Amino acid sequence: MSDETRGKLRRTTTVGELRLAVAAARSEGKSVGLVPTMGALHQGHLSLVEASVAQCGFTVVTIFVNPAQFGPDEDLARYPCTLEADLDALARCGADVAFVPAAEEIYPAGHATGVELGGVAEPLEGQHRAGHFAGVATVVLKLFNMAGADVAYFGRKDYQQMQVVKQMVADLNVPITICECPTVREPDGLAMSSRNKYLAGDARQRALVLWKSLCLARRAVAQGQRDGETILRQMREVIRSAEGAVIDYAALVDPETLAGVARVEQPTLAVLAVKIDETRLIDNCLLEPPLE
Amino acid sequence: MSDETRGKLRRTTTVGELRLAVAAARSEGKSVGLVPTMGALHQGHLSLVEASVAQCGFTVVTIFVNPAQFGPDEDLARYPCTLEADLDALARCGADVAFVPAAEEIYPAGHATGVELGGVAEPLEGQHRAGHFAGVATVVLKLFNMAGADVAYFGRKDYQQMQVVKQMVADLNVPITICECPTVREPDGLAMSSRNKYLAGDARQRALVLWKSLCLARRAVAQGQRDGETILRQMREVIRSAEGAVIDYAALVDPETLAGVARVEQPTLAVLAVKIDETRLIDNCLLEPPLE
Repeated sequence: MSDETRGKLRRTTTVGELRLAVAAARSEGKSVGLVPTMGALHQGHLSLVEASVAQCGFTVVTIFVNPAQFGPDEDLARYPCTLEADLDALARCGADVAFVPAAEEIYPAGHATGVELGGVAEPLEGQHRAGHFAGVATVVLKLFNMAGADVAYFGRKDYQQMQVVKQMVADLNVPITICECPTVREPDGLAMSSRNKYLAGDARQRALVLWKSLCLARRAVAQGQRDGETILRQMREVIRSAEGAVIDYAALVDPETLAGVARVEQPTLAVLAVKIDETRLIDNCLLEPPLE
Repeated sequence: MSDETRGKLRRTTTVGELRLAVAAARSEGKSVGLVPTMGALHQGHLSLVEASVAQCGFTVVTIFVNPAQFGPDEDLARYPCTLEADLDALARCGADVAFVPAAEEIYPAGHATGVELGGVAEPLEGQHRAGHFAGVATVVLKLFNMAGADVAYFGRKDYQQMQVVKQMVADLNVPITICECPTVREPDGLAMSSRNKYLAGDARQRALVLWKSLCLARRAVAQGQRDGETILRQMREVIRSAEGAVIDYAALVDPETLAGVARVEQPTLAVLAVKIDETRLIDNCLLEPPLE
């Protein structure tokens, strides 16, 4: 793929280059949007880029597989990398800068400062992936500070991550606006995720139980069911109907605090983390009891 | 004291007001300097304000006694407060904004995010005041983000704090420059500190042993002494000559890493924390072996 077909997209690898590019855009009066990613881009990521391009004069997309947010037994070493295709896609979407730093640009020797979290970082993923959100929050704060963006775009697919980032921004008074974007799904309902690439053979089909169980919960609430345990029991049955499906958690939580709820009387988030064979997938959807 | 004699100084209590004031200055093309303080201002603080006023078009001074950096057995409840005199002094120095927030403006209910430190935060004060620097770093990062300043001014009197802030700024890529300013001393050598107000009766005179021991170390190095333990032994003797003086630590450290050094072959920081009766004082000075 030649440079020309990458349109105006500029690839930078250092913080200094990134800051110069953003400063030049600012001097032209442009607002700056930021989309932090770990690459292996799919339409979920690209919808964030498209939102930024539509709303901001200048869009920075970061591609960095952040080691600090992977646990020792997780998939850092095999996390998918599709850099050339990612850059082509970003160019097509109209992004201005792809910031693709090496690990030592983000974590130079002697790096010793991080973000410490509580609150919405504690339940769910916080219980199952120790240190994950601290690693996410630290790199996200660093990327915010590097890019100096006005708006950063996050998807509801990683709902708790988005809430953790919003909590950090509020608690540390970071001068940036967080824009929440909807989950993008495959036609059959599977939430788009870079980890879907791991789903070999019929695992792709079995992975549909996440979305099926969320749809079941939504239907149950629409039909008047309010009891959380009843809804969760039905959801778990659907998931366990798939061979090789192991539930990390299935929960109904308050969409703001992520505290568990016993009855669905208010808008409530259904959240799932499920392993299909060795592939850990997460998904969520909002359950909205109809007004009486 | 009437408003007029406060000159152009504007007192703000909310983050929103502070940001509006800074944005107005920015729109006039002014650079912004920040001096974070806990009030009870003395000439040490004012020298930082004077440096900012000389170097920046707009100077913000924050006055906030940060509960998060005090331990349970420390002096939060009796920390000196001289707000009216502080505001008069800031006006005389030419500061533009005094940001004097209430605690709930800085730490609203539900606040759950902080800064986690390692590296230069670990030795010395890090060993003697658990959680102190995490509290400092968190509030300093918040104040940086609230003010959006270009430069922040810190005194070498709180040398380790300054290094912790510099480490945090580098590690989190905070877009601000840290300006180091010299320790300001009383004519007899006592480092200026808000806590000097606690020195009752002859404690003020006995507190001079900190500076005397630092001067002794400097003389020893000038005269060729290079052995760290010998220098520290002499320093401790001077300090213990004062009644009621208890050493928290006396150490010779690398000025960048704050790691202990056994021999003074390079510029080395002598650092002290000493209780005089109930008053804990810190001081430091650079020992510079003459070129051979």
